[in-house]
Amino acid sequence: MKLGVLGAGQLGQMLALAGYPLGQRFVFLDTTGTPSAEIGTTLIDPQGAQLADFLVQVDRVTYEFEHLPVALVEEIERHKPVYPSSRALRVCQHRGLEKSLFSRLSIPTPEYRLVNSAAELQAAIQDLSLAGQKRVVIKTTTEGYDGKGQAVTDQADQAESIWQQLGERELIVEAFVDFVRELSIIAVRGQQGEVAFYPMAENHHHQGILRYSIAPLPNLTAEIQQQAEQYIQALLQELDYVGVLTLELFQQADGQLWANEMAPRVHNSGHWTQNGAATSQFENHCRAVAGLPLGSTQALQPTCMINIIGQAPDVQQVLSQPGVHLHLYGKEERAGRKLGHLNLVAPSLDALLQQVEALIPDLPGAPPIAMSFHAGAISAS
Amino acid sequence: MKLGVLGAGQLGQMLALAGYPLGQRFVFLDTTGTPSAEIGTTLIDPQGAQLADFLVQVDRVTYEFEHLPVALVEEIERHKPVYPSSRALRVCQHRGLEKSLFSRLSIPTPEYRLVNSAAELQAAIQDLSLAGQKRVVIKTTTEGYDGKGQAVTDQADQAESIWQQLGERELIVEAFVDFVRELSIIAVRGQQGEVAFYPMAENHHHQGILRYSIAPLPNLTAEIQQQAEQYIQALLQELDYVGVLTLELFQQADGQLWANEMAPRVHNSGHWTQNGAATSQFENHCRAVAGLPLGSTQALQPTCMINIIGQAPDVQQVLSQPGVHLHLYGKEERAGRKLGHLNLVAPSLDALLQQVEALIPDLPGAPPIAMSFHAGAISAS
Repeated sequence: MKLGVLGAGQLGQMLALAGYPLGQRFVFLDTTGTPSAEIGTTLIDPQGAQLADFLVQVDRVTYEFEHLPVALVEEIERHKPVYPSSRALRVCQHRGLEKSLFSRLSIPTPEYRLVNSAAELQAAIQDLSLAGQKRVVIKTTTEGYDGKGQAVTDQADQAESIWQQLGERELIVEAFVDFVRELSIIAVRGQQGEVAFYPMAENHHHQGILRYSIAPLPNLTAEIQQQAEQYIQALLQELDYVGVLTLELFQQADGQLWANEMAPRVHNSGHWTQNGAATSQFENHCRAVAGLPLGSTQALQPTCMINIIGQAPDVQQVLSQPGVHLHLYGKEERAGRKLGHLNLVAPSLDALLQQVEALIPDLPGAPPIAMSFHAGAISAS
Repeated sequence: MKLGVLGAGQLGQMLALAGYPLGQRFVFLDTTGTPSAEIGTTLIDPQGAQLADFLVQVDRVTYEFEHLPVALVEEIERHKPVYPSSRALRVCQHRGLEKSLFSRLSIPTPEYRLVNSAAELQAAIQDLSLAGQKRVVIKTTTEGYDGKGQAVTDQADQAESIWQQLGERELIVEAFVDFVRELSIIAVRGQQGEVAFYPMAENHHHQGILRYSIAPLPNLTAEIQQQAEQYIQALLQELDYVGVLTLELFQQADGQLWANEMAPRVHNSGHWTQNGAATSQFENHCRAVAGLPLGSTQALQPTCMINIIGQAPDVQQVLSQPGVHLHLYGKEERAGRKLGHLNLVAPSLDALLQQVEALIPDLPGAPPIAMSFHAGAISAS
């Protein structure tokens, strides 16, 4: 089976590496002009001239990033099955649609307001900050990632400058959740509606970019995992979703979960599954798209994913440490760029943290890791 | 780093799949005209016209099969580092050189005789069969694999017909070892001389083709594992070997090991490491060739590799069973052809065997599995 992939970055590369052993082959449609997948066939097509050529080569289509024109995906759907569907894509592209879906499905999400002018922004900041008593998060409704297109304030009088800074476009203003940690749940749904959930991961960001994911989530009650599974299950069902879906969550000190956003694809916070789970998120996405039975999502060992950002480490040093699995994407170094990741595995969480801490000095720019579970209990709400 | 691979079959494909995450890229030199790796760049070169083109594209060279002209590898060595070296290749290509190396390193191997005529063959059968009291195995000294180019007899008067059947070429006649099972040990040696050993596998052949490998080896004493490690360590050191080496062994009922043959490459009996070990044989070979530190060879779970021969199974059925990992090579069906393999993993050996037995009806042509350790104890000698 030939899978067509919209986008040709590292996620596409890792999908292909997982799909090859299933007998799948890959054709990438790159619209950026700078593909990096370097596996299978890549059509470099910033002008949209090669779509027909792409379509004749593939049996099914998926995508590795969500900032795609929905019209393009709808056009492709007229010719070949696309998983996840353009409907899922449309919702995940727009933070307003996402939030309203969360609300409709009774998935708790921070209070929010959509605004289309500096004046509306000012009013929204004033209301949601409770007149400056707490912060609000302001994001573009579309296209932001890795902390780009975001601002945080508690001052309504900053509305004009934020409006300009974020490009004078539709924004979403969200009440700030006083969370103790950021989590994600990743699930996969097959074509018969069967669903498998990965154990949740705890995610650490630094300067807006994911740095560490630890899974299975430490300090997690079965109730919280089930709660998250119910939320993502509701989304999968509502969207008649096929493939891997990621839901990012905040957790309060009392355990309560708040949905932040979702991504209709394999996700950086699921890279740990390559070495820490029975079946990786990449393989399960390929299985779902191909209509194959899903693989076990069981965790094998405590695992920590560490992103390699901007500068490559000394590979000799890194690989000489125990439990390290290296995943380089083959990209040139550039400030802030995701060049690869490491998955560290260990027989216990304590051993894992020791290994991570021993490794950090070898990773240029890696921030210290401060685990939430060191801070004490997080109970079920 | 660009690795050049001589040969472009499934072993090359799996090397590339393991090497990509290390940042490696692959160029295959195919001399057969029918490459199947379908990853990286393949130069199809049955006439030997593209060697220069191959050499400029690669940093280091390895090979995925041993039936290569040594002169070609020596020529390549003049331009680029080749691992394993042409010296290792030369020895592994010739059963006589192999056996004499085993003897020189005090690695027990069945008594043998090289013959170059029907008359010599007759005399060797007469001697080594103790005048017809036990069988001998007759093989071509070069190029045989999967049971091709072999005969078994206890009758010296069959010498003439066997001589003709095997092509009137140099043969090796070996005393038959009364073994209870066939084992293999796989080890990897890095460029600094560091060595890592995989746990041994038990191998089941049917019609000359490997069908099942189970690892870690059941019913194994630490002494026997150490014995095998000493043998392969001696070979690695003697050959100043870099990369993965496989040593096939027979084991007698009293535990005694006999070296059968070796292969200077990743091996079918090591495919279980893809899902059953911390680091696969493929990744460790790539690491060794690139001069990187070796990864852990520790087994994670009891694993059974099952070859898919000749006819593909129903992938839906197979993947719906627990613990199954599929590895298809993307080849067309053909009688006797290796199309792929499955790795089954389970928390215990008993559970593993149950899973294997449950799966066999779904695998066209799969023979029943009869485990040696069901038959009782195999003790250390």
